[in-house]
This record gives sequence, structure tokens and C-alpha cells, in this order.
Amino acid sequence: MDLLHAFSLADVSREHRRGYPDRVAVIDGEIRLTWPQFDDRVNRLANALTGQGVGPGDVVLWMGQNSHRVLECLAAAAKLGAVCGIVNWRQSADELAFVIGDAGAAVTIWQESEVGDAVRAARAQAGSPGRWLRHDAEEGDPDSYQSFLAGGSPDDPALEVDPAAAVLMLYTAAFTGTPNGALLSQQAVLVQSLVMANLQRVDAGYTYLNCGPMFHIATLMTTLATYLFAGINVFTPRVDAEELCRVIEAERCTGAFLMPPTIDQILELNAEGRFDLSPLRSFRGKPEWNAMITVDDSPWATRPAGFGQTEVTGMLTFNALGGECAGNSGRPSPMVSVRIVDPAGHEVPPAETGEIVARGPQIMNGYRNRPDETARRQAGGFHHTGDLGRREDDGSLSFVGPKGRLIKSAAENIYPAEVEGALNSHAAVKESAVIGVPDPTWGQSVLAVVVLADGIDAGEQTEVELIEHVRGRIASYKKPKSIVFRDEPLPRLGWPIDYDELDAAYGGGGYPGGG
Amino acid sequence: MDLLHAFSLADVSREHRRGYPDRVAVIDGEIRLTWPQFDDRVNRLANALTGQGVGPGDVVLWMGQNSHRVLECLAAAAKLGAVCGIVNWRQSADELAFVIGDAGAAVTIWQESEVGDAVRAARAQAGSPGRWLRHDAEEGDPDSYQSFLAGGSPDDPALEVDPAAAVLMLYTAAFTGTPNGALLSQQAVLVQSLVMANLQRVDAGYTYLNCGPMFHIATLMTTLATYLFAGINVFTPRVDAEELCRVIEAERCTGAFLMPPTIDQILELNAEGRFDLSPLRSFRGKPEWNAMITVDDSPWATRPAGFGQTEVTGMLTFNALGGECAGNSGRPSPMVSVRIVDPAGHEVPPAETGEIVARGPQIMNGYRNRPDETARRQAGGFHHTGDLGRREDDGSLSFVGPKGRLIKSAAENIYPAEVEGALNSHAAVKESAVIGVPDPTWGQSVLAVVVLADGIDAGEQTEVELIEHVRGRIASYKKPKSIVFRDEPLPRLGWPIDYDELDAAYGGGGYPGGG
Repeated sequence: MDLLHAFSLADVSREHRRGYPDRVAVIDGEIRLTWPQFDDRVNRLANALTGQGVGPGDVVLWMGQNSHRVLECLAAAAKLGAVCGIVNWRQSADELAFVIGDAGAAVTIWQESEVGDAVRAARAQAGSPGRWLRHDAEEGDPDSYQSFLAGGSPDDPALEVDPAAAVLMLYTAAFTGTPNGALLSQQAVLVQSLVMANLQRVDAGYTYLNCGPMFHIATLMTTLATYLFAGINVFTPRVDAEELCRVIEAERCTGAFLMPPTIDQILELNAEGRFDLSPLRSFRGKPEWNAMITVDDSPWATRPAGFGQTEVTGMLTFNALGGECAGNSGRPSPMVSVRIVDPAGHEVPPAETGEIVARGPQIMNGYRNRPDETARRQAGGFHHTGDLGRREDDGSLSFVGPKGRLIKSAAENIYPAEVEGALNSHAAVKESAVIGVPDPTWGQSVLAVVVLADGIDAGEQTEVELIEHVRGRIASYKKPKSIVFRDEPLPRLGWPIDYDELDAAYGGGGYPGGG
Repeated sequence: MDLLHAFSLADVSREHRRGYPDRVAVIDGEIRLTWPQFDDRVNRLANALTGQGVGPGDVVLWMGQNSHRVLECLAAAAKLGAVCGIVNWRQSADELAFVIGDAGAAVTIWQESEVGDAVRAARAQAGSPGRWLRHDAEEGDPDSYQSFLAGGSPDDPALEVDPAAAVLMLYTAAFTGTPNGALLSQQAVLVQSLVMANLQRVDAGYTYLNCGPMFHIATLMTTLATYLFAGINVFTPRVDAEELCRVIEAERCTGAFLMPPTIDQILELNAEGRFDLSPLRSFRGKPEWNAMITVDDSPWATRPAGFGQTEVTGMLTFNALGGECAGNSGRPSPMVSVRIVDPAGHEVPPAETGEIVARGPQIMNGYRNRPDETARRQAGGFHHTGDLGRREDDGSLSFVGPKGRLIKSAAENIYPAEVEGALNSHAAVKESAVIGVPDPTWGQSVLAVVVLADGIDAGEQTEVELIEHVRGRIASYKKPKSIVFRDEPLPRLGWPIDYDELDAAYGGGGYPGGG
């Protein structure tokens, strides 16, 4: 390994204990640890894990809510070249059982409060492979996380760790089938943190309230940027509006991951100004919100979001980059190559829709225990996002929709999502789904299944009008050859449309590749 | 190579030609190239260089003033895995001849204007290895850079390039002996650019005037941050205050590398406000300067500088990081590990002086053709900066001085620069040098050679007072045992003090390692 040029997540607390010996690293309820205290605990945990046999590539699972201990586990895994998997604690016992069986963790850290019943039921199903530690156990419990950690030496294990090795595993919400554990490398996490810190203006003066779920990259991106830049990470187990207000005021938090419903709750409970939330830099919102907090003028908050997914460690493109643009997803992050490709993997010209593919240090190493799916996603040296996009004429990117199945009509590739997007932009359409129907001349032809808005007549005139509408928005060969109108809602598998049922009902088939 | 996770300097223009097809990449006098035009030229040059036999690791030398073509050469070298060396054009013919012989370049690009006489004299001395191209030649000249470039295909060479490979070579100003070519990798340049862009607030709206010398990393750091974030790089051959004003106004430059004498010249010539310099974000200075420009409120401009050197691709620590601090050089850049070590390479405690060593992606790969010096600098897996520093109690770093020779008294290591710093902080001292004198009991003892300020009496009382002054500032064992006062200035080799002459004159010797 090229040690001289290595910098990994393992080095962050090692460096900060020297650079910020008096500064606070984490706050969690009554717990408040300086960087040396934090790093000492990370060392203890890493050494205790080593004693448990955890080595490079082994998995430590976190099956609980937010806690400073999640960051501790991640940092300890980093020092060992191991992998910290953060599990969605909101899952059912069945779902947790799947993860337990799939992850094959050497050590699993779980939580009694709120999550214990589901964990116990999951263990009854899946067994309890490896060592299990409860992080909210009473002191003295030999199976407590705290006792386990206390048994490790505070000396830095000082192992050589490859920055390209996986350190973080997050299960991705699969639209169909089973979830997959995306393995994100040390360098992936660091590069994303460098970029996020820039666009979100995270520095050593930043105090980030971890209230969004830490099993989700959207929360973690800022956690890790704050960690890298020696800011303070504050933890609260889960979203609770009143508790958030209390913590924001008490710790003078400058950042927090807040969804609109939580903001509405805070607006209501803090209408009288019980809590001083002025340190919080947050997105511009309702006037009463803007008056309560400090409106965040960082590039990220000024032009939020972009295109991203767990498999690229968060954001692949940012609206915050490059200024005004035509696309809905801005421009690529500085350390990624992004291409829009056809099914053969060839780049398509601007304004044409294709799959968004990318490469660069922030791309996942692969899915754990999924060699076939990993190979499929990494075909041709690019990560295939499974999402459709388009380069606008000004070079910016638009997200079009999930890739789904491909329809092939003559030599042309047609993505249902693109046609559905065009259909759904017509006021008469409530929802739509597009399938391919075997066609003796063209291979397949395009059939749209449309549920109309209330009061719209399902006649031939509407069919003609909708087809014309699509033709005016995307290439003519993509327009439906015909439309069937449907009274019932579209069949769905959870959220995703059940295309197999539609094929069966409306004669779909003949997809390229025999799909 | 791990292509899926690779992102190199070669990818920057490749990506920007897609992301910013209509935006300007470079401006140089009448020349104004969009990203696709720039990237086409880079491809042409890269392919022409390939035709000339330039491959991975080969050197292309730039021996001229600032130009958009410097960036072109660097980007072309990046696409080939080759190395672009940017030579100090202010050097004498003898110095240039040394570089020509040392670099062994496959292709050298030179300039007639201002530099031609020295280059010709250097070639007469060193010969003309490889191909020579004149970049300011008339069109049609077969040995012109322009003809050479035009002969290459505009197709992207699309080679796989290792992000860890060297891409940039800058000769470092050696204090003694001959200059060494520091080889900086693709990832070194990118990581430094990510950090600089953050602290200097460089984004796609930034327009950087390259007026400082591009052979110096202090100018190039911002050039490359601007390049990575798709801002505009504007070039002017050299510093000329009136021309700078004209260009800043015409191109609405938001950044420029300006030294204080240039600022004074601009203040004088623009006293009447002939030029609108308001787009320029620059360091806060005299009131009339602040009124003329936009005071830069970026972290970098608010707390400028830090500790750096060419061998770490610029800045290793930043005053802009971590807020107020006790040290004079702030805190480490986010992607480096920094240690203060004793001569055996062991970390010393806070408040003790030792050599600043570091590792991380931005550390040079080594010096070209200097295996011994490279090995010496990289001993123990850390880059040895050759500079002394200290961790203050708050974890921040202070630069103490160049390491120089070590004095060993009993078991203690004493660095002359630290003692000199303490002496020089006394108002009675004009300049000082510290040497080691053989001592039968302690190995060596510390002797200070002091030139006093005008009107100070060189008596015993002054000696006692100065020794006490040093004792109050650094560890007592480091204080001079005695002081000799000297009327003449200290002997110097250029700027560095000539310690050998002082040893000869005052009985120095017995240095550890036989030095």
C-alpha cells in the first residue's frame, strides 16, 4: 500500500485529537466528548473488536437509532479496515431478519428502546450470528456495548488501512426484490465530505444535529462533512420536534436534517418563541420559519438537491454547481465523470434520454454478497445508476425517471418512464404506465395504459390529443401507438407499478433480452 | 487499475466540455476558448505528443511566461499520464541549462519574447534534447507549438491514467545546492484544488487572472481550483500593473494573485478610478484599496496563509481552518496527517519543536532523478518537510524555521532556527546564527553569533540579558552557553546563512552524524 499518500476515515479522529485537543467532537444527551476522548473510545472499540476477531472486510452492524456510538462504530471500523453497516431500525422483524442473515456480521450492536421487540423477533427468525451487544444496556451488563468497549485498550491500533477499502454499508431501498448492502469506501466518504463541506459551508464552527436517520446517506453526508472538518456532531435518537428545539437551543446547533412535516411541527410548537432557534441555518421557507431561524445562504441551501443515490455516497450532481441551468439536477460533482448512455453503453447526444452512469472515487465498491448484481451495475467500467437522465443543451442534467424495462421499436430504444413523464404532464392524466406490445413489423409497439383525471372522457379524441401531446414533448417514435383507458388505479408492488400484471392484462411482451 | 473509481486531472476538461458546452474556459488576450474548444485543443496536443513518442512518465517542459497554453500542456500531459514541468522563466541561462539537462524532456516548449536570449544561451550550453517548439512563433513555422498542435487529431486519446501518477513538475528553490523537480500527482492536484476552492470560494462563477508566475504553486493552486470548478482562467504573460487593471476590468476578474508591490502600483495608477476593479475580490488592505476592489470575505482571505511548500502541492496547514488559534500556521488541511517529530522520527509532545512531517494524497511522489534525496525525504512513510514546527497547546501549528543542522548537547536535540528565533525576538538583536561547539562533557554546546542593533553595547551585560531572554522563551537547555558579538553582517550563501564559514570562524563542529 502507498502509505505516504494514504488518508482514510481512520485518520480523521487521529488528526483531530492532535489539532483540536480541547474541542468537543460529539454531544449526545448528557454525553459530551472532546476529540481525544472520542478517539480514545474509538481505539478501545477497535481493539475490542479485534479481540472479537473483526478484521478487514468484516461487518459490524448497528441496529439502533441515532447515537454518538454510530460514529464511534464507523470510526472504529475505519481503523480496522472493517465495515460498519447501519441498519434501518424502522424495518419490520421480517426485514431485520433478512438483513441479519444477509450481512453475516461479526458483531451486531442493537438497542432495546423502541427497537428491541422487532430485533428479538428477527433474531428468533434468523438466529444470532456473531457477537451481540446492546448499546443501551445497564452498566455492568457483560453483553453491553459499554462493557465491551471498556475492555479494549485505548492505544491506537495503528493499522495500515487502504483508502479504497469499504468502510460503510447502507442497505438501499430496492424498488422490487430484496435490499442490497451498498459498500462505500473510505475515499468515497471523504471525497463526498469534501464537496458537501464546501457547498454546505461546513467548517469547524459547524454544529450538526443528527436528527434525520443515520441509516440514510442524506443525513450521513453532513454528519461526515462535519466530522472531517472538526465540527460538532450532536445526536438525538430520532425525530421529535420538541426535543429538537430543546437541543438546537441548548447546543446552538447550526445545522439539522429537517423534513417539511417536522418544520411544520416546530413552527406550531414554537409559535410563541419558547425556544431560540436563531443559530440554526436552514432552508428558506415560510416567513414565520425564516424569522425563527437563520436562512441558510450556502450554495447547497440556495439551490438544494440534485441527483444522487446511496450507491454514489449521496450526490452525483448538484444544483448548487454551475449556476442557473435548464436541467432539473444541476451539474456533476467535481470528482465524478457522468455519462448518459444507451443500452449498449454508448454515450447518447445531448437532449436524448439514456441511463445515467458515472465513475469516480465516490462510487460504491459494490453490493455485499451480490457478485452478479454488482457486475451488472459496473459493466464497462461505469456505475450504472438504474436511472434515466438527459443532458440539456446547456450541459446540465435532468433526471427523467427510473430506468425500468426497455421497449424496442424498430432500432429505437424507448424507456417507459420518459413516455409516462410526457403523458403525466397533461392535465387530463391522473397516472399512466407504458408497456411494449409485440409487433410483427417493428418488434414492439408502444401501448400506454392511462387512468384519466376525474370528469375526462375516455374517447378517441382524448387518445389522439394525448398522443399529440407526447409527440410535442419527446421524439415522435416514442409516442404511444395507442392508449387504453383504465378506470381502476394502476396495479402496484408497494410504490412501483406492476408492469408484469399490465403486460398480462394488455398483451405486453417481446422485450429485448427476452424480458 | 481501478477504472471505476478513477478520476484524474485528465477528466476535468472531458467532463466540463459536456457540462459547460457554452461556457468559456480560458481567456488570453484575444483568445477565448469554450470548454469544448479547449478540450479539442488539449486532445490535439495530446495526440501530437503521442506522435512525438511522449508516454507515461515522460516530461514536457514549459519554458515561457504565463499563457493559456500552460494549462493546455498540463491537461494534455494529464491525458497521457505524462508530466508537465513548468520552468521558472526568470532564471539565468546557466540555471535554465541545468534544468534542461536535468529534466531530460521529450518536448520543450519555449518562448522568444523576453525569454528567448536566455533560452538560446542555455541550449548552447546544454544542447537541445528532444523536440523544441516555440509557442509564440509565427503561424506556419513548422517548429511552432501551434503547427505541432494542429497536426494532432481532436479525438480524445481516452487512455487509462492512474490518479496516483505524477502530472506536474515544479522545481523547488533549493536554499543550497541545485534545484529539484518535485513530481506532483493527479490526485495531489485535485485534492488541493478541492480544499482551496472551498476556502477561497472558487466556483463556476470565478474568473481568475493568472498574473502571478505559473511556475509557482502559489499561483497554480487557484488556477487549478478554478479549472476543477469550471471557472474561467484568464492569462497575462507576467505582472504589469496597467495591463492587469485593463484585464480585470475587461474580463470582470474576481480573483488574481497580487503581491503588495503590485497593489501599490495599481493604487497609484488607478487613483483617479480609470479602471473599474470592483469585480475583483482581494485581501483587505489600505482603505483606498478596499474602496477600489471588493474585500474578499472568504475564509482564505479572512485568515490568509498557513504552512506549505511545493512538495505538498501548496498548503499543508491553513489559518482559515479551525478559527482563532495560538499557532502562526493554523491547522492541517482536511486530507493530511501532520506530525511533529524528533530526528529519530518519533512524535514529540505539544509545545516541543521538531520537524514537520506529513502524509496524504497531496504529498509529492518524489523528486525527479533524485532517488537518494527522495528516500531521505520519505523516510518512515512520512514526507519530511525540512522545516521545524510546533504544536501549540490548542493543537494549532507554528512554523519555527528551516530545520538546518542539528546541535546535540547531552541527549538533547537543539535546532539552531529555534534558538535564533528566540534571539531575534529581542530588540537588541539585528541578526543571529547559532552553531554547535565541541564540548568534552556534553558533546556540543550552543554558541550564538549575534549582530547587534545600532547603538547596543556588546558587553557582558548584553550577553547575560540575551541568554536570559532565550531562557524565558524556550527550554533552558537550548539557550546559548555563550554569545560572540560580530560587527559585520552574517556570512550568507545568497539568502541562507553560511554556517560552514561560521563554524570555521568560531570553532563550531562535532555535529551528530559527523556533519
